[in-house]
Amino acid sequence: MNGYAMLKIGESGWIEKERPVCGPMDAICKPLAVAICTSDVHTLWEGAIGERHNMILGHECCAEVVEVGSLVKDFKPGDRVLVPAITPDWNSLEAQAGYSMHSGGMLAGWKFSNFKDGVFAEFFHVNDADGNLALMPADMPAEDACMLSDMVPTGFHGVELADVQFGDSVLVIGIGPVGLMAVAGANMRGASRIIAVGTRQVCVDAARGYGATDFISYKDGSIEDQVLSMTGGKGVDKIIVAGGDCGTFDSAVKCLKPGGNIGNVNYLGEGDYVNIPRVEWGVGMGHKQITGGLMPGGRLRMEKLGSLVTAGKLDVHPLISHVFKGWEHLEEALFLMRDKPRDLIKPVVIIED
Amino acid sequence: MNGYAMLKIGESGWIEKERPVCGPMDAICKPLAVAICTSDVHTLWEGAIGERHNMILGHECCAEVVEVGSLVKDFKPGDRVLVPAITPDWNSLEAQAGYSMHSGGMLAGWKFSNFKDGVFAEFFHVNDADGNLALMPADMPAEDACMLSDMVPTGFHGVELADVQFGDSVLVIGIGPVGLMAVAGANMRGASRIIAVGTRQVCVDAARGYGATDFISYKDGSIEDQVLSMTGGKGVDKIIVAGGDCGTFDSAVKCLKPGGNIGNVNYLGEGDYVNIPRVEWGVGMGHKQITGGLMPGGRLRMEKLGSLVTAGKLDVHPLISHVFKGWEHLEEALFLMRDKPRDLIKPVVIIED
Amino acid sequence: MNGYAMLKIGESGWIEKERPVCGPMDAICKPLAVAICTSDVHTLWEGAIGERHNMILGHECCAEVVEVGSLVKDFKPGDRVLVPAITPDWNSLEAQAGYSMHSGGMLAGWKFSNFKDGVFAEFFHVNDADGNLALMPADMPAEDACMLSDMVPTGFHGVELADVQFGDSVLVIGIGPVGLMAVAGANMRGASRIIAVGTRQVCVDAARGYGATDFISYKDGSIEDQVLSMTGGKGVDKIIVAGGDCGTFDSAVKCLKPGGNIGNVNYLGEGDYVNIPRVEWGVGMGHKQITGGLMPGGRLRMEKLGSLVTAGKLDVHPLISHVFKGWEHLEEALFLMRDKPRDLIKPVVIIED
Amino acid sequence: MNGYAMLKIGESGWIEKERPVCGPMDAICKPLAVAICTSDVHTLWEGAIGERHNMILGHECCAEVVEVGSLVKDFKPGDRVLVPAITPDWNSLEAQAGYSMHSGGMLAGWKFSNFKDGVFAEFFHVNDADGNLALMPADMPAEDACMLSDMVPTGFHGVELADVQFGDSVLVIGIGPVGLMAVAGANMRGASRIIAVGTRQVCVDAARGYGATDFISYKDGSIEDQVLSMTGGKGVDKIIVAGGDCGTFDSAVKCLKPGGNIGNVNYLGEGDYVNIPRVEWGVGMGHKQITGGLMPGGRLRMEKLGSLVTAGKLDVHPLISHVFKGWEHLEEALFLMRDKPRDLIKPVVIIED
Repeated sequence: MNGYAMLKIGESGWIEKERPVCGPMDAICKPLAVAICTSDVHTLWEGAIGERHNMILGHECCAEVVEVGSLVKDFKPGDRVLVPAITPDWNSLEAQAGYSMHSGGMLAGWKFSNFKDGVFAEFFHVNDADGNLALMPADMPAEDACMLSDMVPTGFHGVELADVQFGDSVLVIGIGPVGLMAVAGANMRGASRIIAVGTRQVCVDAARGYGATDFISYKDGSIEDQVLSMTGGKGVDKIIVAGGDCGTFDSAVKCLKPGGNIGNVNYLGEGDYVNIPRVEWGVGMGHKQITGGLMPGGRLRMEKLGSLVTAGKLDVHPLISHVFKGWEHLEEALFLMRDKPRDLIKPVVIIED
Repeated sequence: MNGYAMLKIGESGWIEKERPVCGPMDAICKPLAVAICTSDVHTLWEGAIGERHNMILGHECCAEVVEVGSLVKDFKPGDRVLVPAITPDWNSLEAQAGYSMHSGGMLAGWKFSNFKDGVFAEFFHVNDADGNLALMPADMPAEDACMLSDMVPTGFHGVELADVQFGDSVLVIGIGPVGLMAVAGANMRGASRIIAVGTRQVCVDAARGYGATDFISYKDGSIEDQVLSMTGGKGVDKIIVAGGDCGTFDSAVKCLKPGGNIGNVNYLGEGDYVNIPRVEWGVGMGHKQITGGLMPGGRLRMEKLGSLVTAGKLDVHPLISHVFKGWEHLEEALFLMRDKPRDLIKPVVIIED
Repeated sequence: MNGYAMLKIGESGWIEKERPVCGPMDAICKPLAVAICTSDVHTLWEGAIGERHNMILGHECCAEVVEVGSLVKDFKPGDRVLVPAITPDWNSLEAQAGYSMHSGGMLAGWKFSNFKDGVFAEFFHVNDADGNLALMPADMPAEDACMLSDMVPTGFHGVELADVQFGDSVLVIGIGPVGLMAVAGANMRGASRIIAVGTRQVCVDAARGYGATDFISYKDGSIEDQVLSMTGGKGVDKIIVAGGDCGTFDSAVKCLKPGGNIGNVNYLGEGDYVNIPRVEWGVGMGHKQITGGLMPGGRLRMEKLGSLVTAGKLDVHPLISHVFKGWEHLEEALFLMRDKPRDLIKPVVIIED
Repeated sequence: MNGYAMLKIGESGWIEKERPVCGPMDAICKPLAVAICTSDVHTLWEGAIGERHNMILGHECCAEVVEVGSLVKDFKPGDRVLVPAITPDWNSLEAQAGYSMHSGGMLAGWKFSNFKDGVFAEFFHVNDADGNLALMPADMPAEDACMLSDMVPTGFHGVELADVQFGDSVLVIGIGPVGLMAVAGANMRGASRIIAVGTRQVCVDAARGYGATDFISYKDGSIEDQVLSMTGGKGVDKIIVAGGDCGTFDSAVKCLKPGGNIGNVNYLGEGDYVNIPRVEWGVGMGHKQITGGLMPGGRLRMEKLGSLVTAGKLDVHPLISHVFKGWEHLEEALFLMRDKPRDLIKPVVIIED
């Protein structure tokens, strides 16, 4: 079969590989549509997860099942499915402890285009089909379904980590597609004021549509100065970090009320340390909780988030800025993600309607 | 001063009373607008809280501060304020344990028109002004502000008790004004499917506007039969009880998935027992959690919920079906609440704009 | 192979059956020791779970692995293992939602001697060996290991459901072996005063050893009268129900402070309804949370609880009142559990040291 | 009245001051016994909270009430009371949000020897007596009662922040008196393995008595190397930081499993940043939660923790290494705390039995 692979750091292209083998609990699927993630860019051009050779890229898609293992009960060839980027081993100790995304080791629930071939291929392998796939709602467009693999669950997990409650003021740092979903999730979870940090107009417009009430640009001064000024010096109740770098947490802690939470869903690609400012962290005793986590994957999460879309509670269309048709446009979409033109949010490639 | 009082069970009218005295931490306020609660009806005509003589009724209003005690720091005469129906003693052991509404005894955070005179009077007394009042946003109409005393926090507390999460299916039993706020709160907390039980058209229309996706009438069969049929026999994830009686819980348990929660905010006025069906409750081991609670009162809650209205995230107007002007219409509004015409949701009396 | 089976309600005996077949994820084990549960008594003589024909009884044991499926990674023949009474399907939607004990349906994580043959046999079948077995610590006696199948996790789950916190006063209703573990768990979770309801001297002595500070006998009046009298009319912070019947909840609600929790781990074998007293439940608004749940099973729980025993933090010996050696004593042990002599807590049958 | 004061950074002595004035909700008390805290040392000789002039030191004591304000209901002159180091304003927004220790601003619940005169004086002032004092159990020795002001609640709060559960492996960094109470609290909350970091023999012996199972000395290599080696490379479930400095968190993150919590109760006196190692923090997505908080103060906490002592569940005697009698020994006790001889844990000065 053909797949679009990372040949080595900095180099990519189409290669020929064996079609993956289906174990007793597994499924083999073919993509209906795929989306490009900034992680693909980090992996390929920045070597974020280290060197890989001839590894097929991609972890966002929806698909059709073409084969299932003998123990699979709920799916059969021909089923159209939602595919989460994170596909845990559900019987692992970590999953039993409530952290399925770390099944088998920290972050090891992330398998596609990390530990095994990804979804930019004619066929791909899904471990534990019953536990990780979900039926795609009949009336859901393929491009919408792709947003459920990673963007929606990651942004929404930021909201869960920040523990947004009715009437909270929430700061969302970064309004790329994950940050936009953090805005939407915070709004859907009862935030009142949502302050978004970002500058690209296309993202600002989308964020406003998703419920952001105020905007900050890092070009107008430090985040903390602006947030403290907007909140009478008090700071916000909760913060979701969906962009920036290790230094972002310095600002975040300074913007946060005692008793507040910082939930990070941003991949921190470089630097030795995340720096927590001692004094503003209450000399260790300010109850400013800091956590960050890979999104939960698996079937239940796909079903739950999918139901928000089909119930009309969440519209993912504003995320999708570019739509291509056919594998032949995959590389163009990937390069677009790397080059990030001003009108880009998220590119999708539809393979088969 | 004049106040509209319960003379005894079944009898009401205007009476003359001493203006209340202001302690060091207290405030004396005069209403700007008041709303009628079904509790007023239960208290007066059904004797729900027992006999009371010449007790001024009412616990929903917004007001102007006319006097404050010597220890009050944050309010002064002339301030326009939100007034919660529940005004806890914040230093009580119960409040320290997180249950301020039960400060001093079960339900004892409810003082207005229960343990002391209510707000249907020229002046009323607020204990712990700094802890219980909140500044009324400048641009908030008085009738909207009245909805924040009880309807919004009670409905939203049902959502908190039910612990609604992203993508949950939620059943809301009862769509009077509290139930409508439970629908709005469930929607604002990330529910996907919201099944509402109710029949009055004005309420059904409002519920749809607040996010209900499906409707059930008790006239079409038992709630459980209809819900199980709508959910493929699986039931819903969470249930909010905002209407019905002791028997409602029998249906609710039967509609609920294992691991789900029932959050009750309905005053149960009669009957010896709430009946939990043994078998459907998993013979005691089905993890179907049942709880119910008086809404949290106090200043922080008022500020948080008020911020949802001012941020444009919550529109309380659809709750207000009847608006009167002047104390002389108070009795009319109260009798309307008792008689419940088909177009009634909530009557408000504006005293002074 | 031979197994001791329920032939039908009220009748039991040794039968010959096919040795179970091992699927790819499964294990076949032989018991090293087994314990009798009151559930075996309820199942066999009271028909608690309905009619069963020739179903092998038993769900408490430790064992040696004799065969594993091709996908099993962490266990091999010869391994000595802890075996939980509850063996979930870990990739089910219910397990993903945090309720593994209800995987596949309410209570359906309980398979042994319920949906399939139990452990009173030469060999028994374990689904998902990697997810459900745990290595037995080298120095743990077989009879101790049997207590980890059900008694320890069930009693401790009651403590989790009741959410015992530092300094709480806790009422434990019932001090059979599960109730004793509820006492031990409440003590290990930071309760200060632990009031135990029970009368048999052997249990009272064990409860005192496990941390109970006060005792109540139902013979001396109602539970609520005694508890309220002992607590100055205030009631207790938390309640664990580990005995009694549907009527027990009436007493429990009356003994509980607002804001408290009732955690039930008692199988409710008969009656139509659990009765919650309306007034003492705060007319639906007293924040007296009622829940009950089957214990979590699976490997992680076994490892965690096993570590308490090996670290010397939990001594399960006081539970074991009668030890037999050899399958030929199994029936004697079972009948003992049915007849419940005054000196009985828990009988164990050691098959092979 | 006489009081022992910080004259300025580095200088202390007895001074004469006006007896404090009692407001309507307040109490004036005289100490029965006082204990020295390392915070007193940091405040006086290191200027940890900045410059102070003639501020009376001390925040650990038990006392007798000598005067109460007109609104105080539950205490009267002559009552012997437990006094928490943290005395919140219970009606503040922060307390309503569950963070009473930050009432009025981050850490501002800490008033004694911080914002106002402390307890090393003939008389001291307690704000909100009903909310912050607790009756001292009749049979509790005064020196024991002093341990409840700060050492017990601070150590136990570390356990709450780390969210220790049944069977968890827990690392406690630092085994001074707070760390010892963290060990005791972790043990009382169900930890199995408790690894303590510390070297002084008197503390190691006490820690073993409180439930520590393993010991590490920083002299034998890095904490992370030792912990990872002891846990087969897996790390521990939970960590309580009760000693060390900003760099300690680097080690802590490296020792922690994904999904684990770090709870800090150590005052971080210097350094610009707490450094979180990026890679071991899962590049921001490892679900290693970091928080730290000042202990909750107030009456309920005092009552709850006091009940553990009177119920015989917690023995604070091993904390008290030096007992003096009379104010004339206060300075000696303070200097002892500064000089920290090898046999010191905690010095207490009894004023009046």
